[in-house]
Amino acid sequence: MKRIGVLTSGGDSPGMNAAVRAVVRKALYEGMEVYGINYGFAGLVAGDIRKLTRRDVGDIIQRGGTFLYSARYPQFATGEGQLKGIEQLNRFGIEGLVVVGGDGSYRGAYALTKRGYPCIGLPGTIDNDIPGTDYTIGFDTAINTVLDALDRIRDTATSHVRTFVIEVMGRDAGDIALWAGVASGAEQIIIPEKGFDITGVADNIREGREKGKKHTIIILAEGVMDGKEFAEKLDAIDNFHVRVTVLGHVQRGGSPTARDRVLASQFGAGAVEYLKADKGGLCLGLRNEKIVTHDIVDTLDNMKHKPNLDLYKLNKEISS
Amino acid sequence: MKRIGVLTSGGDSPGMNAAVRAVVRKALYEGMEVYGINYGFAGLVAGDIRKLTRRDVGDIIQRGGTFLYSARYPQFATGEGQLKGIEQLNRFGIEGLVVVGGDGSYRGAYALTKRGYPCIGLPGTIDNDIPGTDYTIGFDTAINTVLDALDRIRDTATSHVRTFVIEVMGRDAGDIALWAGVASGAEQIIIPEKGFDITGVADNIREGREKGKKHTIIILAEGVMDGKEFAEKLDAIDNFHVRVTVLGHVQRGGSPTARDRVLASQFGAGAVEYLKADKGGLCLGLRNEKIVTHDIVDTLDNMKHKPNLDLYKLNKEISS
Amino acid sequence: MKRIGVLTSGGDSPGMNAAVRAVVRKALYEGMEVYGINYGFAGLVAGDIRKLTRRDVGDIIQRGGTFLYSARYPQFATGEGQLKGIEQLNRFGIEGLVVVGGDGSYRGAYALTKRGYPCIGLPGTIDNDIPGTDYTIGFDTAINTVLDALDRIRDTATSHVRTFVIEVMGRDAGDIALWAGVASGAEQIIIPEKGFDITGVADNIREGREKGKKHTIIILAEGVMDGKEFAEKLDAIDNFHVRVTVLGHVQRGGSPTARDRVLASQFGAGAVEYLKADKGGLCLGLRNEKIVTHDIVDTLDNMKHKPNLDLYKLNKEISS
Amino acid sequence: MKRIGVLTSGGDSPGMNAAVRAVVRKALYEGMEVYGINYGFAGLVAGDIRKLTRRDVGDIIQRGGTFLYSARYPQFATGEGQLKGIEQLNRFGIEGLVVVGGDGSYRGAYALTKRGYPCIGLPGTIDNDIPGTDYTIGFDTAINTVLDALDRIRDTATSHVRTFVIEVMGRDAGDIALWAGVASGAEQIIIPEKGFDITGVADNIREGREKGKKHTIIILAEGVMDGKEFAEKLDAIDNFHVRVTVLGHVQRGGSPTARDRVLASQFGAGAVEYLKADKGGLCLGLRNEKIVTHDIVDTLDNMKHKPNLDLYKLNKEISS
Repeated sequence: MKRIGVLTSGGDSPGMNAAVRAVVRKALYEGMEVYGINYGFAGLVAGDIRKLTRRDVGDIIQRGGTFLYSARYPQFATGEGQLKGIEQLNRFGIEGLVVVGGDGSYRGAYALTKRGYPCIGLPGTIDNDIPGTDYTIGFDTAINTVLDALDRIRDTATSHVRTFVIEVMGRDAGDIALWAGVASGAEQIIIPEKGFDITGVADNIREGREKGKKHTIIILAEGVMDGKEFAEKLDAIDNFHVRVTVLGHVQRGGSPTARDRVLASQFGAGAVEYLKADKGGLCLGLRNEKIVTHDIVDTLDNMKHKPNLDLYKLNKEISS
Repeated sequence: MKRIGVLTSGGDSPGMNAAVRAVVRKALYEGMEVYGINYGFAGLVAGDIRKLTRRDVGDIIQRGGTFLYSARYPQFATGEGQLKGIEQLNRFGIEGLVVVGGDGSYRGAYALTKRGYPCIGLPGTIDNDIPGTDYTIGFDTAINTVLDALDRIRDTATSHVRTFVIEVMGRDAGDIALWAGVASGAEQIIIPEKGFDITGVADNIREGREKGKKHTIIILAEGVMDGKEFAEKLDAIDNFHVRVTVLGHVQRGGSPTARDRVLASQFGAGAVEYLKADKGGLCLGLRNEKIVTHDIVDTLDNMKHKPNLDLYKLNKEISS
Repeated sequence: MKRIGVLTSGGDSPGMNAAVRAVVRKALYEGMEVYGINYGFAGLVAGDIRKLTRRDVGDIIQRGGTFLYSARYPQFATGEGQLKGIEQLNRFGIEGLVVVGGDGSYRGAYALTKRGYPCIGLPGTIDNDIPGTDYTIGFDTAINTVLDALDRIRDTATSHVRTFVIEVMGRDAGDIALWAGVASGAEQIIIPEKGFDITGVADNIREGREKGKKHTIIILAEGVMDGKEFAEKLDAIDNFHVRVTVLGHVQRGGSPTARDRVLASQFGAGAVEYLKADKGGLCLGLRNEKIVTHDIVDTLDNMKHKPNLDLYKLNKEISS
Repeated sequence: MKRIGVLTSGGDSPGMNAAVRAVVRKALYEGMEVYGINYGFAGLVAGDIRKLTRRDVGDIIQRGGTFLYSARYPQFATGEGQLKGIEQLNRFGIEGLVVVGGDGSYRGAYALTKRGYPCIGLPGTIDNDIPGTDYTIGFDTAINTVLDALDRIRDTATSHVRTFVIEVMGRDAGDIALWAGVASGAEQIIIPEKGFDITGVADNIREGREKGKKHTIIILAEGVMDGKEFAEKLDAIDNFHVRVTVLGHVQRGGSPTARDRVLASQFGAGAVEYLKADKGGLCLGLRNEKIVTHDIVDTLDNMKHKPNLDLYKLNKEISS
């Protein structure tokens, strides 16, 4: 393969730029050409495509967001969209495609793969909810962003009883809540993978108070419930003086951490190696500290992301 | 005066520790003794008082919160509370008191002053809403915390139309929203000091869209309305795809900035100089880059904080 | 005036981008056109000039460095260079020029002013050593960068006697050392404006040790001596186990703080107002919290920057 | 085992506090008692030992350094020191010991193990140079600290040719240089594990210049040579306008990252589990994302740390 394309898709995550940079630099190193596709699959279908040079990816490794922009584009689920996309790729002579993104992006890559077009998927999402990899690009940055917020809340010192509820991202996966919860020493972590009952939460706050704790910090994955609703449920039981923080899109941004940049660079360079060898239909992952590949069809059909629930247990033991 | 006390009161703010450190160190330098009072006026009345040494204030200049803890204590508004407080001070031989805090704290210092007990008030609150000073201890840190969140939101790059509403602290004063708004280039700043109508806000978003802007960032002082309510009002007009971030107590924490630490140190040392000269009934401020004093009675009765509304106008001109 | 130019010159500083953004946005708001000149006076002479749009200054307010690049260009001191520069400005129909930079940049603006070409100088340097202003664009960011380094060093906790020397920028002015020193509680601050003798420094370390201090942190402005040389002088007296940190160009970078961005925005917009009113030959400053102007000729000929030496005294009293 | 001790030893690293917190909390959860030993093995021999409560480890998870202090204590290599240490442990009824630290600390734990006293070693050092683990406590924080400095240097934008040399920690191991180098996109990484010749370095800078690069960033592990010496060697070849940054102990400090806190918590809790089961003579590691144990004797005698040299190759391919 001599000419490849790269796009970012879905919710953006810190490190996507580092991944695209690595794709471009590695491809040039291997004597290949790279085209950037703006706005994900939407831009692919629209033909919003341009050649990328070494210079285009200078001074971007440290930037949050994605300079190729990103978009959700549900229309790509249709055969028409897919065929149009392949037509555009052919028009530019692009022989293989690197797709950086989350679940939806993998589905796009999967569709192209099924139509015989070689795609490599790279896991880029802050949620860490992609099967086949221990970590996704952006997850490490996101948990540090949440951690910074939690540390700041912990600084606040009064003699009042207060309960802080911090709603964090994670529609289906509790990874952000789990990691940031353990790292901050949050008293309670509420995630979709584990049940909870509000009276148990309330009891736990009261027990903490009896031990002399004034503050309780509860980290809540958005997939369970929104923060305000949770606070209302708590207040219906007793006046816990709940204060809610909703970090929202703050969690998607920021300069990527060292780990996210290294991982993104490994993934980006790895994708090029596979395309160079004319291999497609794969997604890359980090498994046990090694870059691995999976069949993208198999990954979406048969694999499932599981968060490290040992951390849930660990937190119960050391944070109360 | 040979023996003084210091307490922190009300909502805590970054830099309070730096102020207490300066009070202690400066007093020791001047050959005076310092007693720390825990939990603000509540601890004063309860006699939660201990001698502070040089060592007690080592390694705290960089910490958020206040190691003397803080509390709201509305009971101090009563004559009984005040007399009990003075009794405790006398019991420890404490001849003058430094109070670091916001509006309510000043009222406590004011009450003691009226009863003949020498107090010095230092403005410590993230809201910047204390009369008699250009800046309060903690304000600079808070606006940088908000700014960091806004920068992260700005990183998020998609092709979708999105409206981000960020609710920030400021019950009565728009200072945080104003400064963080200008610093981040927020498209709109909504503060209590300025009226707004929701249709104007909506029109402005639409104008931005026509100019090619996909994102709009609106920074909203909590004193105006809460973020969720604001979002609902906007969505009632049109689907602006509003995403709400509520930073909450995140804004109170964090290691203080250089400026907050320097200001706190100047205030703390200044307070000691006045008490050493047996002067009380004063509050300190920074006016035009100089440490100044005001009569605390006059300050509360006759002065009023005004935010720098030139920034409001400036933002309108350069951010749209 | 309907068409103005803007350039950044000399050592870059965080906030220069915010200043250029404000120049562009304010000028567009006033119905004027703006041209950006790359690489400072070098680019001016070479004609490296292009029209700037609203879009060119989007997403730059948060970035360190300067997207117009900067350069030192001593050749601009010659009449030939200046005439060539004015010729280029005339060629593009640019009627007035905003120059953002330090001492050398002001000299360039001064030279153009003397030749009748309207210039406005904005103080942009991390060193804070520009006459006519309390603060320069970039100073606040630089002291926070240094402070972060000092806080990290202070974290290091061993039972060993250690002396940490941190060399910071400041060839002629001790402002960075002074502010970061007070903010971090450095035991000693060594600046060009104050004499020091090495035996006094050594005595001070020993006194600290006798009080039970294991660590001593000394902040040293580069204008006094380089860190390694200073360490050798100390070690010649006694084994103080000196460890040297040289922050170097780290201090020039980073996303600007809230204050630097606000100040830069005020300056940038202010410059446009003066040019719009056909006023030139001025430099802007912040004096006592207000934007002021000075004659640029008078500023360079008759004014002198003075650091706030009260901070030096304050630190001696509260940090030992 | 019902009563255990914990100490931190050697150069401190961010996350040591989180590890000690986890030891204490997990032990209390398991119904055991914990004693903290100040100043590492020096304090052990001196009997500087105290019982730790839940409260002692509150509000420390986020702090750099170690609240138990640390020390180097070469005297512990003697039989006399070791016997005295065991005597102190017996005096307090402490049945097993957790040692957090680097290479030297492991040697102490090894010595006690050989004398029949149950020890668990936890890898705590920023250098990542401990055999038996993929990552040490503090490494992730250190590389992010270095990365922040590198990002700031990269911001500096001038038209001048400049070569930035950043000396980072790593006496024997190049891990910090490698990871921070890849993450920042440094043009060259110089580590002890790989040879280099200075003419090759110079050629590489010149090649970069020919490609249009103005800046070259070289990251240099201190184990190779000091930054100033390296700069002199470069300047002897040609005038590369070298600027040197020596981060020094800045790298040891700072609030630990999420990953370092989680890892430290897993290690701390794990150590307690082994001691509870009366197992000693072990050191814990993270291998392929799992907490593993090794015989501490075997680890020191037969294992060797190897950095991930794939990153070295990767950087050569994507950074030039």
